[in-house]
Amino acid sequence: MTVGLTTAQLIEKHRPTLDKALDAIRTRAYWSPHPEHPKAYGEGDSLGAHEGQAAFDALRGTRIDLDQPGTDGWTGGEVSPFGIELGVEYPHVDVDVLLPAMQSGIAAWRDAGPEARAAVCLEILARISARTHEFAHAVMHTSGQAFMMAFQAGGPHAQDRGMEAVAYAYTEQTRTPADAEWVKPQGKRDPLQLRKGFTAVPRGVSLLIGCNTFPTWNGYPGLFASLATGNPVLVKPHPRAVLPLALTVQVARGVLGEAGFDPNLVALAAERPEEGIAKTLATRPEVRIIDYTGSTTFGDWLEANARQAQVYTEKAGVNTVVIDSTDDYKGMLSNLAFSLSLYSGQMCTTPQNLLIPRDGITTDAGRKTYDEVVADLAAAVDGLLGDDVRANALLGAIVNPQVGARIDKAGELGEVALASRAVTHPDFPGATVRTPVIVKQDGARKQWDTPDADAAYLTECFGPVSFAVAVDSADDAVALLRRTVRDKGAMTVGAYTTSPEVEKLVEEACLEECAQLSLNLTGGVYVNQTAAFSDFHGSGGNPAANSALCDGAFVANRFRTVEVRRQA
Amino acid sequence: MTVGLTTAQLIEKHRPTLDKALDAIRTRAYWSPHPEHPKAYGEGDSLGAHEGQAAFDALRGTRIDLDQPGTDGWTGGEVSPFGIELGVEYPHVDVDVLLPAMQSGIAAWRDAGPEARAAVCLEILARISARTHEFAHAVMHTSGQAFMMAFQAGGPHAQDRGMEAVAYAYTEQTRTPADAEWVKPQGKRDPLQLRKGFTAVPRGVSLLIGCNTFPTWNGYPGLFASLATGNPVLVKPHPRAVLPLALTVQVARGVLGEAGFDPNLVALAAERPEEGIAKTLATRPEVRIIDYTGSTTFGDWLEANARQAQVYTEKAGVNTVVIDSTDDYKGMLSNLAFSLSLYSGQMCTTPQNLLIPRDGITTDAGRKTYDEVVADLAAAVDGLLGDDVRANALLGAIVNPQVGARIDKAGELGEVALASRAVTHPDFPGATVRTPVIVKQDGARKQWDTPDADAAYLTECFGPVSFAVAVDSADDAVALLRRTVRDKGAMTVGAYTTSPEVEKLVEEACLEECAQLSLNLTGGVYVNQTAAFSDFHGSGGNPAANSALCDGAFVANRFRTVEVRRQA
Repeated sequence: MTVGLTTAQLIEKHRPTLDKALDAIRTRAYWSPHPEHPKAYGEGDSLGAHEGQAAFDALRGTRIDLDQPGTDGWTGGEVSPFGIELGVEYPHVDVDVLLPAMQSGIAAWRDAGPEARAAVCLEILARISARTHEFAHAVMHTSGQAFMMAFQAGGPHAQDRGMEAVAYAYTEQTRTPADAEWVKPQGKRDPLQLRKGFTAVPRGVSLLIGCNTFPTWNGYPGLFASLATGNPVLVKPHPRAVLPLALTVQVARGVLGEAGFDPNLVALAAERPEEGIAKTLATRPEVRIIDYTGSTTFGDWLEANARQAQVYTEKAGVNTVVIDSTDDYKGMLSNLAFSLSLYSGQMCTTPQNLLIPRDGITTDAGRKTYDEVVADLAAAVDGLLGDDVRANALLGAIVNPQVGARIDKAGELGEVALASRAVTHPDFPGATVRTPVIVKQDGARKQWDTPDADAAYLTECFGPVSFAVAVDSADDAVALLRRTVRDKGAMTVGAYTTSPEVEKLVEEACLEECAQLSLNLTGGVYVNQTAAFSDFHGSGGNPAANSALCDGAFVANRFRTVEVRRQA
Repeated sequence: MTVGLTTAQLIEKHRPTLDKALDAIRTRAYWSPHPEHPKAYGEGDSLGAHEGQAAFDALRGTRIDLDQPGTDGWTGGEVSPFGIELGVEYPHVDVDVLLPAMQSGIAAWRDAGPEARAAVCLEILARISARTHEFAHAVMHTSGQAFMMAFQAGGPHAQDRGMEAVAYAYTEQTRTPADAEWVKPQGKRDPLQLRKGFTAVPRGVSLLIGCNTFPTWNGYPGLFASLATGNPVLVKPHPRAVLPLALTVQVARGVLGEAGFDPNLVALAAERPEEGIAKTLATRPEVRIIDYTGSTTFGDWLEANARQAQVYTEKAGVNTVVIDSTDDYKGMLSNLAFSLSLYSGQMCTTPQNLLIPRDGITTDAGRKTYDEVVADLAAAVDGLLGDDVRANALLGAIVNPQVGARIDKAGELGEVALASRAVTHPDFPGATVRTPVIVKQDGARKQWDTPDADAAYLTECFGPVSFAVAVDSADDAVALLRRTVRDKGAMTVGAYTTSPEVEKLVEEACLEECAQLSLNLTGGVYVNQTAAFSDFHGSGGNPAANSALCDGAFVANRFRTVEVRRQA
């Protein structure tokens, strides 16, 4: 890692990929430079399955020294949701030393310009991509995701989201040219003439507050958007999901250094147990941008208190699926069963409330009563997860005891239509892997259409707990959907209907309440999955998140343009 | 005004202009569709000088009925800074009635799409442009600007800024296509296929809180950015500058109605004396966007309290000019004299602090001591304003008694190098027109380089009061510049230097503190003037303003993109 790289070399290497990414965000067609299949890795620099496993194993019980200024001790202690201790130690930092050190490289990074920054970011992503197998284990053993999901969501999909942010950042910074000649006619007199230069300048240190469930997928957009717009990035991982982001920081520091920039432009702030360093960091005057994924409580705190910073939050929401009618009953059931099961319902995009008319729905398999729909869905989940091998491939380990407690107490909320069961993991006997619960609920208007309504389904119940809510009509379903999105937010909304009128009602509700809608998904695309370069993750327009991944608004406030004009 | 207009007709009419505007914001070359010269008006629909004067005269003593829902009375009482009473009355509104009425047209306005909205906005601007002479009198007799400035800044330049915002809004909304086909290969299996639709959706009611000094120039960017992105706009003018924005609202309502949209998408909220309606409006849940120009105190209040809204503020700053050296001493003096005099220093961009080395500067006219530079600048101002006719053409009427008091008390702050004099206005004997004051100040480091420093030049002194600050070196000048921008903000920074080293220092300071810099202006462009489509007004990166006019960040958060995806 001592061979120097010029930015010109990096631009030459990565410009074609950047151009494809720029094209993808304009067309929104399918595109990804990062293979999804584990077998696609292993050639050249890229680690294959065994090498990735070995690299991860070699990390266990070690100390990851990032050679950061202000290191004043060591911290660690992650225990995998699958039951193994990682035993990795990370530097603990004195932020009074680290933050000034992070600022000292800003001017050179700014002067490098948007294209060089994009190329450096793409080199970081390329090196991470080559270690996807290693990262997959790191994500699996911090988030509790099953291996294949950790591989895909934590690897290529996260790398896609990072590259998408780089593409948006590049576009936004280059909307204004670097130079302009300005000649204003003055009738018979000489024209007024100015030479103008425009420079994208960073805001200051950007703080990434990582989450437990998707450390890379939710972390990369903010990290790369800020770095590509010239800001140093301080990464504060969730204490139970440090490793994937520590490795990311390590790679970033290596590339920055090789390319002649200050490695301290990216740094890690791991915390000691119960230290709660996020509040301290978030209100430091040097910190001007914050990206956060996590609880509504802390997200709201950040928005209210970190007033010196631009704050981007993804918080909690209550995701709804309206089930009105379908021409593919079996496809609908299997699609929903998969959505409820994936990662044991621990996605911010997992459907929570399934709104089903009390008097049933019309389907290609005949009229189905509310009870039949719920029973058939429960059976579909059972069928999907009946085999323990497949169950373990789809589900995930429960990420924390609070989620486990919610599963155990779900029966107190109503009649259980599908009970959760524990699945034994053959490789990790210490893992707590659970199947989803479905609880029946009364969706009569009086249950939810008052300001003090306290129906269980009106608040987020994070984890594999879903509510089959019996509503009185499609109109009521849409009204409850509106109320839920407006008051609680939603990362996703789904709907199944063969009625153009109901489809129109749901669509209008989503446009007005600003929620992303998936209609009649019955195949291999699921409401809880979004594809970078094409789908928006969240809308930024309802309480679940104040920004979307990824659009112009996500990058535009991460830099400013300074103009210097001179008499020509 | 009863002939209906289709949006297709409006698009056909205005698309070529929109395309030119889109090109201008990309190249930043000079462009404007709005003539600056008063004689360019009077053909066709456009009012000439006499017609404009007559139209303004006819407004005096009348009631402007906008036919708005919730009108519960009438208010008015503007008195021109030039001494005449306008006697115009405006509707007073019950916001509990008006706000819901403003929301009812949102869906149709949203569904019209970005191009139709841009065309409607350009039609509004075209009709305002045709009445530029009439608007000029309205701006003059509310802001106190001399006629020519009211004509240009309040007319074509304001219209340019409005159109620039429309161009940015259009670009931003169309970065994502309306539709996309997404086809993801699945190896030997059938590909996954989705049809995706993307719709720009508004945030909600946008509130424009207008200012006294530039009601149209500072008001149009926010108004048109919000309207073009689909939001209804409620215009709350400064109580002393209602007329120009009331006319604007009237024109907008007319065009919206003719084009088949709800006129209530734009409405006026004039207030009764001391009513202070801005605080009430700013915290209404319906209000999701706020544009504000005015005092730092109220701007800070909005940012802290209107948490339900995106808040764009332009507040106060302390603008600095570093005078290090020049190769055109005469040009520098006359350029600065003009900048200090224009509109009697009542621009947010007027230089306040002139930092001059205590031991003098090198010039093409030989070495000049600090005292000589100050005396020569005072003489240049005197020369520029020696003739009352020219003085009245350049200066302006003092906009409020607080500005007058600041001029009168300037002598208490230090040695007066140039005293202010009152200029009699031949047409308006009641006007208070004043020339600028220059006060000498000690710029030794100990005066400003401590946290509790209280030198007069460290705070904004709005109006024609400038400080000639004697600094110990160019390095000190740059250090004081940095401190001022960082702590107090700046809309503009100027510098005169022939030294590449000093130029580099000043440039680096502006890049790091995020301030717009004008270098060595000695001709007909002034530090306090910016041209739409090319120059940024403010940076959004220092305390003077949290956004710039106009860039992607100014429009990107005014809408969100909602995606609806369907199985293909």
